[in-house]
Amino acid sequence: MIPFKLKILGAGSAIPSLHRAASAQLLQYNGSNVLIDCAEGTQMQLKKNKISAMRIDHILISHLHGDHYFGLIGLLSSLHLIGRTQPIHVYGPPALIDILHIQLKAADTKLRFPLIFQPLDSDGFKCVYSGKYLDFFSFPVLHRIPTWGFLIREKSGEPNIKSEFVAKYQPNPETIRAIKSGENFTADDGEIIHNNQITHTLSPPRSYAYCTDTAYFEPLIEYIKGVNLLYHEATFMSKFTEEAKNTFHSTSVQAAEIAKKANVGKLLLGHFSSRYNDLNPLLAEAQEVFPNTDLALDGSAFEIE
Amino acid sequence: MIPFKLKILGAGSAIPSLHRAASAQLLQYNGSNVLIDCAEGTQMQLKKNKISAMRIDHILISHLHGDHYFGLIGLLSSLHLIGRTQPIHVYGPPALIDILHIQLKAADTKLRFPLIFQPLDSDGFKCVYSGKYLDFFSFPVLHRIPTWGFLIREKSGEPNIKSEFVAKYQPNPETIRAIKSGENFTADDGEIIHNNQITHTLSPPRSYAYCTDTAYFEPLIEYIKGVNLLYHEATFMSKFTEEAKNTFHSTSVQAAEIAKKANVGKLLLGHFSSRYNDLNPLLAEAQEVFPNTDLALDGSAFEIE
Repeated sequence: MIPFKLKILGAGSAIPSLHRAASAQLLQYNGSNVLIDCAEGTQMQLKKNKISAMRIDHILISHLHGDHYFGLIGLLSSLHLIGRTQPIHVYGPPALIDILHIQLKAADTKLRFPLIFQPLDSDGFKCVYSGKYLDFFSFPVLHRIPTWGFLIREKSGEPNIKSEFVAKYQPNPETIRAIKSGENFTADDGEIIHNNQITHTLSPPRSYAYCTDTAYFEPLIEYIKGVNLLYHEATFMSKFTEEAKNTFHSTSVQAAEIAKKANVGKLLLGHFSSRYNDLNPLLAEAQEVFPNTDLALDGSAFEIE
Repeated sequence: MIPFKLKILGAGSAIPSLHRAASAQLLQYNGSNVLIDCAEGTQMQLKKNKISAMRIDHILISHLHGDHYFGLIGLLSSLHLIGRTQPIHVYGPPALIDILHIQLKAADTKLRFPLIFQPLDSDGFKCVYSGKYLDFFSFPVLHRIPTWGFLIREKSGEPNIKSEFVAKYQPNPETIRAIKSGENFTADDGEIIHNNQITHTLSPPRSYAYCTDTAYFEPLIEYIKGVNLLYHEATFMSKFTEEAKNTFHSTSVQAAEIAKKANVGKLLLGHFSSRYNDLNPLLAEAQEVFPNTDLALDGSAFEIE
């Protein structure tokens, strides 16, 4: 199976600390590298984790609070300086492109690579990219300013034909296309071999959802139903439910409730308030509601499976 | 003597590395903290050096290349979040305030403290601030985009009256003012005591100059003549004199030539190209021209004396 991995570059919240960087994470699938959020210092977090920024193809920015994007202009500037020429795709709130342009203009910098920007649309669940291996979707979450969550899903793809069948019958390209589209095979002697005997059963496409920053927001459940891995912000312990509501953030228990109602495979908590040094109480609270929960710690990695 | 100190937070150049942060430094004088340039990650460099960002009163930004200011919006945002209400003064290229405003607007953030911005003027040597203890001056240097150097000088101040004199004659406030303004003192018995017998001789005001990024630029010499400490960029070794010229940077030898011609007390080299791991060859080259030269390394500190 193609590895589908998530690397946490930072899962702190607004005020950065020495042991917890602000939001950034990298999703890796079959050579494609997708950066999700890009707080100040993300380019240094990439270096610390020995990941080349040159390999990033897509950058998704959830919203325009600084702890989610202040590192983007620095990352793009560095890519320019080290000679990138390959295009980079950026998806984010519409105002993001103006913020990038005003800074590039002030520096009299014309990027050496195409920056392909796609503004996010606040209206419902939208496909923002459909590639060879992955599809990206955006959907609104509930925060103080317009903010989006993301769902990244691998393509279903065509079934593979079993190698024993190919060796025995040496099908021509037309026959291969017919089998891949689901048809049965008729041998020269008239024998009909059923499609499911000669193709590998596909596993359902794996998916990852990223939901930060957001208050407890039930409309999410429909969008992220059944994802293999869900990252949901958990800024506070449940004793601060009122503060979470007022600041449009969630508690770890609320994150777990969303995970449970959406029937996801696994939940990752992140965007922890800087007041928490020990995160185990947040984890324990969430696990009471949704046992398969883990903490997104800087530098940690997770398989989407 | 009042301590007058420089702390190097970062002295790397455009491409940040794990062992050398981009430009930022802090000048400390009698409780006043002046931040000079503010690259991405400066707020973390302050934390690493156990310096509270809350104590910064003034921020000077030399130019709008990212390795000199991309950390400013994050620093200001953090000060807002941790509840600063004291004003902060920012001096920089005129476009800087628009860059800050567009980002604050996108975040729907209204700073809790007054941000007092003063645009720099590209025309000659200008006083940009005159305070109780320090004066700041700006002057243009020679770079690809408009860029300024800074000179920070302590006030001459009034002379102090010797404690033995005060104990013996117990002068009233009017007499104290007269002596501080240079007058002699006439005792009740008619004896005239000369001013220089009852006051401490003032040492000349100490000063620090910051020149980065700049090509070799002789007009600087007049502006920075005789400063106690000069920070001058030294991006390259002298074998790259042509590359320095083409990119509007200096070699370490050129920095030393400026220091020598300006008759400064001490020279600090900085803004090193990321190609140099070992900086000692740059230092050695400069010391051949100007022996009292040192390297600005991240975390190092210097007295201005």
